[in-house]
Amino acid sequence: MAEYMNMDTLRFILNDVLDVSQLCELPRFKDYDQESFNMLLDSIKAFADKEMYPVFKEMDENPARYEDGKIVVHPVVKTLMKASGKNGYIGPTFDYEVGGMQLPHVIESASAHVMQSANNSLPGYFALTGGAANLIISYGSQELIDRYVPNMMKGAWGGTMCLTEPQAGSSLSDITTSATRNEDGSFNITGQKIFISGGDHEYASNFVHLVLVRIEGAPAGTKGISLFVVPKFRIAENGDLTPNDVITAGDFQKMGQRGYCTTHLVFGENNNCKGWLVGAENKGLKYMFQMMNGARIDVGMTAASTATAAYHASLQYAKERPQGRRILAGGKKNVEQEQTFIINHPDVRRMLLLQRAVVEGSLSLLFQTSLYHDLSKESGSEDEREHYHDLLEILTPIAKTYPSEMGRVSINNGLQILGGYGFCTDFPLEQYYRDIRIMALYEGTTGIQSLDLLGRKVTMKNGAAMRRLTKEIIGTIKEASTYDDLKKYAETLKEASKTLEASLMHLLQFAMEGQHERYVADATIFMEMMSNIVIAWQWLKMATVAKKALLTGDETYTANFYENKITTMQFYFKYELPKISAAQVTLMHEDNLTIPEVKEGVF
Amino acid sequence: MAEYMNMDTLRFILNDVLDVSQLCELPRFKDYDQESFNMLLDSIKAFADKEMYPVFKEMDENPARYEDGKIVVHPVVKTLMKASGKNGYIGPTFDYEVGGMQLPHVIESASAHVMQSANNSLPGYFALTGGAANLIISYGSQELIDRYVPNMMKGAWGGTMCLTEPQAGSSLSDITTSATRNEDGSFNITGQKIFISGGDHEYASNFVHLVLVRIEGAPAGTKGISLFVVPKFRIAENGDLTPNDVITAGDFQKMGQRGYCTTHLVFGENNNCKGWLVGAENKGLKYMFQMMNGARIDVGMTAASTATAAYHASLQYAKERPQGRRILAGGKKNVEQEQTFIINHPDVRRMLLLQRAVVEGSLSLLFQTSLYHDLSKESGSEDEREHYHDLLEILTPIAKTYPSEMGRVSINNGLQILGGYGFCTDFPLEQYYRDIRIMALYEGTTGIQSLDLLGRKVTMKNGAAMRRLTKEIIGTIKEASTYDDLKKYAETLKEASKTLEASLMHLLQFAMEGQHERYVADATIFMEMMSNIVIAWQWLKMATVAKKALLTGDETYTANFYENKITTMQFYFKYELPKISAAQVTLMHEDNLTIPEVKEGVF
Repeated sequence: MAEYMNMDTLRFILNDVLDVSQLCELPRFKDYDQESFNMLLDSIKAFADKEMYPVFKEMDENPARYEDGKIVVHPVVKTLMKASGKNGYIGPTFDYEVGGMQLPHVIESASAHVMQSANNSLPGYFALTGGAANLIISYGSQELIDRYVPNMMKGAWGGTMCLTEPQAGSSLSDITTSATRNEDGSFNITGQKIFISGGDHEYASNFVHLVLVRIEGAPAGTKGISLFVVPKFRIAENGDLTPNDVITAGDFQKMGQRGYCTTHLVFGENNNCKGWLVGAENKGLKYMFQMMNGARIDVGMTAASTATAAYHASLQYAKERPQGRRILAGGKKNVEQEQTFIINHPDVRRMLLLQRAVVEGSLSLLFQTSLYHDLSKESGSEDEREHYHDLLEILTPIAKTYPSEMGRVSINNGLQILGGYGFCTDFPLEQYYRDIRIMALYEGTTGIQSLDLLGRKVTMKNGAAMRRLTKEIIGTIKEASTYDDLKKYAETLKEASKTLEASLMHLLQFAMEGQHERYVADATIFMEMMSNIVIAWQWLKMATVAKKALLTGDETYTANFYENKITTMQFYFKYELPKISAAQVTLMHEDNLTIPEVKEGVF
Repeated sequence: MAEYMNMDTLRFILNDVLDVSQLCELPRFKDYDQESFNMLLDSIKAFADKEMYPVFKEMDENPARYEDGKIVVHPVVKTLMKASGKNGYIGPTFDYEVGGMQLPHVIESASAHVMQSANNSLPGYFALTGGAANLIISYGSQELIDRYVPNMMKGAWGGTMCLTEPQAGSSLSDITTSATRNEDGSFNITGQKIFISGGDHEYASNFVHLVLVRIEGAPAGTKGISLFVVPKFRIAENGDLTPNDVITAGDFQKMGQRGYCTTHLVFGENNNCKGWLVGAENKGLKYMFQMMNGARIDVGMTAASTATAAYHASLQYAKERPQGRRILAGGKKNVEQEQTFIINHPDVRRMLLLQRAVVEGSLSLLFQTSLYHDLSKESGSEDEREHYHDLLEILTPIAKTYPSEMGRVSINNGLQILGGYGFCTDFPLEQYYRDIRIMALYEGTTGIQSLDLLGRKVTMKNGAAMRRLTKEIIGTIKEASTYDDLKKYAETLKEASKTLEASLMHLLQFAMEGQHERYVADATIFMEMMSNIVIAWQWLKMATVAKKALLTGDETYTANFYENKITTMQFYFKYELPKISAAQVTLMHEDNLTIPEVKEGVF
């Protein structure tokens, strides 16, 4: 089987860079240690090798589709739902008492990485089931938990999140799916939801939809949204399932992730659809958004994992494909020579190193963010929890966006390495290229993430999160500076941080003058700039750990392994980090071109 | 019908920016004037509206494919081949005496733009037929011309270019298709060619393949390659067609341009395939490459045109889709308000302006390069012809690469504007996104173009081409500087040119030290940098023409039209041109990371 991810790199980030075993000293995770984490990941790798990677291409060639009122998906979904229930892949972070494994989020992220690299269409089926169960467990009544969660945890029932409506995409204020109260405490639900991932198929006997709904008479906007459980089949007293007037109206046909169904659901067309309120009225969006950090990290991880698999596929091709010859002094080539493997051409090496820099930089940031997620919930003191929560909040939009945007660029380079074959369906690159494109759209587009970063996270608590992050980055710079070989890179990152600060100060003037729309007009460029610095920080951190290991003679990995981490850091600092200077010019440019009133008639 | 390109913008570039009617003073083009060019383009627009745009999506949904030894393509190809013969679309630049219209290349490029914007899969069928005929006309004997060209010009027979072999992609030195001489002057041909666009279908009664072949005993490398005509059917004395042992072995299934067949041809499997030498032995690659500037400009044009259509599709969506609300002072939104159209969000406007800047900048450069092509052939004096030939040579790799690479980025932004719908097959953006991906691979990948630019064109004739280009750019800067509003942009471009020069001087040191591989190691980054400056030059030129028109009260187009050209130039200078500073840091960075021996064991 082709290599689609690298377990050593995964372990290096988890164990050596982040030392996730620190979590095992916290009460919640006391049953675990580094070895048990490693064993768990090995078992997931074995499962992914056997069940997930082999059907990756088949699922694309036989896409999920709507036939005779039903959604048809690849039969592997049956295997998967069963196995995920049995192996504990659904809700692995949940409490023991509801059937979870009390695993840290960072380990759940690592498992997701392994599986998503093998097959990016498949993990969603059980991951969303876990997400839906989590909402019920966190905010629902004991009755709702008892009724729905056990079958979800078993993989017998699927779960979904229903947010988007045809007229309300990014703007959830405008949803119109409505609920009216029945005498028995249930509600009558009417409306349509679109883009519902994993919303229906034959391999689950029921679906538990977690639906954002407006209760009749609720306030306008996001303050009037409530969360409901709306099952496909109602559960009678005796446990029988009866239809709940949830109709599957279609399956969106997509450019990529074609094995993953994306349904259109109609609730209450015959006025016979019942839903049950989760938690309090009008708190639905708040509940949903308390799950959002995890969901966004997971999208970023799917992007990084898809790009990981693409990197390995292009690396393998580059090693095996003879083509052309090295360039000799004077620009000549010796045609009498055998062709060289394309991995020996500097431009191909550049494209491979770019992929590695993007992919491993993304993974490092994603695991870092997931670790903060755990620490924000489980650290001993309130102060610590707040500290890590702020870091989680400010890094989440970046951890979602950078892998999605730059992962696409990374795969584009992988495809290019294959030349014309990269464009052909006989090779996997074109599928990765199509699949990853959704990641910048899922769970809030790049534009929405950038508004969240600049408009909300950077300024929250008077800039507290930003200060905490800067302090983390400075810590890494200081440690790196103690190694002669890394000093110049540490210095470069220090300067880069100052550049970011100067750009931000410039923009904040607009906010202070009440020109808030102008303040965030170039939020996407700010996102590019800040992401770039955050990834440079992760690379400097990885290089420092590698350097230390080389100097202390640590033999956990080979010397070559450590050297390569340093080389990839150098690559990032030469080829990627310099882009912040362009972003700075753009952000500080006096021309104001995208506010409608300033340039009227431009379209 | 949806707008897929803009005739005013096309005419503005041709007539107002480039004044292509200057060509009509040259003897070859004396039968034409601006009005006749405009009329011709209008007639092509009408044809594209009626025959090409309506089948764009159908051709993707029913891709070209191999069935029972035959290639099945969309029946529109029949209409197209007939009409293109009748309307003169095949070889419109050819001499009257061989059935051409003696049109300038720049007008052929303009027609191509109209048609490719309507349907990027379709024009290749007749354009390659023209290209093949051109090789025969230019280098073949009168006998070959008489035998093949008339039926090709009628659209009765198709033509192809057969270069690539499974083991020889970018490296043509390594082709192995071979020829042995027969007593009758013909040759026996044996070998395989892959990726042959338009290589077979039922709507042409014969195919005339122009094939790169090594004659037995020829020198190794590119110096031993000859050009042959190898027809699918041989022509008997009485005109009957008899099979020539050219077997179609398959059709490559691709991610995009799925309506355009990409065949695998096997020559002489039964040792009964005859070919006829075109021109002299061992000159094949030279002949082929004399056609290459035109072919590369055409790929760039297909990219720019695909991105044009995508821009218009996303613009239309942005104007019609309500979503969200404007951001008010303090970052608030008024949810009681109606939703606004997404075109009013600054980030959407940024993505639209980016597309416009890339697309129109690309078009302007492509027409500029095509005009130089005409002037290099038809100008009155040897000196002038040399001048324009040098400009053509140095701009061609850029005119091929910039639209292919940045057109992809442009379409990516168009897709993003549609949100989740952009990823769905109900909307055209995802098809444009897939289609354009091949352009960075066709006719020499971006890596190959970049080696050509830095390794050959920049240094040719001791830098003469580079000097001529710089002089052109300085001319534009000087003219722009005479307008107060444009002065600062002119100044920025001047600085940018100096930055480019400094980076180039830095790199040239490596060449002078004999480190040629290192000199071109980052050729792709140099390409990005130089392209960026060349497009900025084109924008400053367009803005200067627009400014002049506004000041003189020229009413050819509306004042708003001219203002928008200036706004788009400003956008380019704020958001795109600054990227050269990052490229400079990369190019001048001391770390050497992609030469295999410097970092061994990195992969």
